[in-house]
Amino acid sequence: MRYPNHLLKLIDVLKRLPGVGTKSAERFAFQMIDWPEAHLHEMGEVVKALRSKLKGCSDCACLMEDEKCHFCGSALRDKETLCVVASPRDVFAIEGTHEYKGLYHVLGGVLNPLEGVNPESLRLSALESRVKALGVKEMVIALDFTLEGDATALYVKQRFEGLGLKISRLAFGMPLGSSLDYVDGGTLAKAFTGRRQF
Amino acid sequence: MRYPNHLLKLIDVLKRLPGVGTKSAERFAFQMIDWPEAHLHEMGEVVKALRSKLKGCSDCACLMEDEKCHFCGSALRDKETLCVVASPRDVFAIEGTHEYKGLYHVLGGVLNPLEGVNPESLRLSALESRVKALGVKEMVIALDFTLEGDATALYVKQRFEGLGLKISRLAFGMPLGSSLDYVDGGTLAKAFTGRRQF
Repeated sequence: MRYPNHLLKLIDVLKRLPGVGTKSAERFAFQMIDWPEAHLHEMGEVVKALRSKLKGCSDCACLMEDEKCHFCGSALRDKETLCVVASPRDVFAIEGTHEYKGLYHVLGGVLNPLEGVNPESLRLSALESRVKALGVKEMVIALDFTLEGDATALYVKQRFEGLGLKISRLAFGMPLGSSLDYVDGGTLAKAFTGRRQF
Repeated sequence: MRYPNHLLKLIDVLKRLPGVGTKSAERFAFQMIDWPEAHLHEMGEVVKALRSKLKGCSDCACLMEDEKCHFCGSALRDKETLCVVASPRDVFAIEGTHEYKGLYHVLGGVLNPLEGVNPESLRLSALESRVKALGVKEMVIALDFTLEGDATALYVKQRFEGLGLKISRLAFGMPLGSSLDYVDGGTLAKAFTGRRQF
């Protein structure tokens, strides 16, 4: 006996969530059957309104609550420093540190030729126009320290280093609270070469 | 910097799914921001329509695709055997075995006084009326072999054994493909007491 059609449809829809397979989707779906009608209605409305309520800034592509971007529209941010990130989510992590007062630029991903992500798929020409229009003095590349992140960082560096601005990347090294025993060799090696007097 | 309001709302709504905490809900939400509008719309519609499209049978509380229950409305099912399960999901598992041709009765849970699930919260008086109306000869209790499932099975047995029907429970024993080394002591003990000549 197969599941009723609408249940199958719900399971299919839930399987689009990252990391959710058939078993988890079934678990979600059967639980949702028992939800009060108000919860179902609320979830449906919130999901449907997502695109209209959460827009990306047309300049930096950060998520905007209102029509005005929290960063591009602010007089308090340093407009000559630009931090390049892969996704809007990274912006929240960096803001959480309270270390950075410049603007952001969301690339929308990292280079990944195997999955068809080429330089043209990223917001790189927008980055070029902004760098010129804002007169950016420093570009901080805050991409993941993965194969794809490294390749993207290198690509960005090579593309923009001719424009006469400082290009930096987040420091490599030991994470806070880490011990030498447990940190991997690559990180330890980077921490050695990057050692600083104190 | 906090997340935009609509994002927070989406995260809250997703956290109602079983086993989904803040981190997973955030992961889901940020992925959903990148979904095509059609996917968001579809998910919203499917969730909102859940209650109206998926109804439980008023007799057995099994999920119904149409207005007619697949079991109660069928002439092919043995109406004198009734299988008592906790949730509509269990019905699909049992149907998958093709071993059972009787009717079902969904209790809607198992007894759990700590969480306020008393005999009155379960569909027990409906069970009593059906047992009498259908002239049930055998009641198969197919509840989980947990503390709550055992207590509920015992309660059902004591409540209905006066009505002169056979009451059985799924067999205890070794699961198929299991080895003596790995099965727990309780299961092994039950398998011993329940041994059968072959």
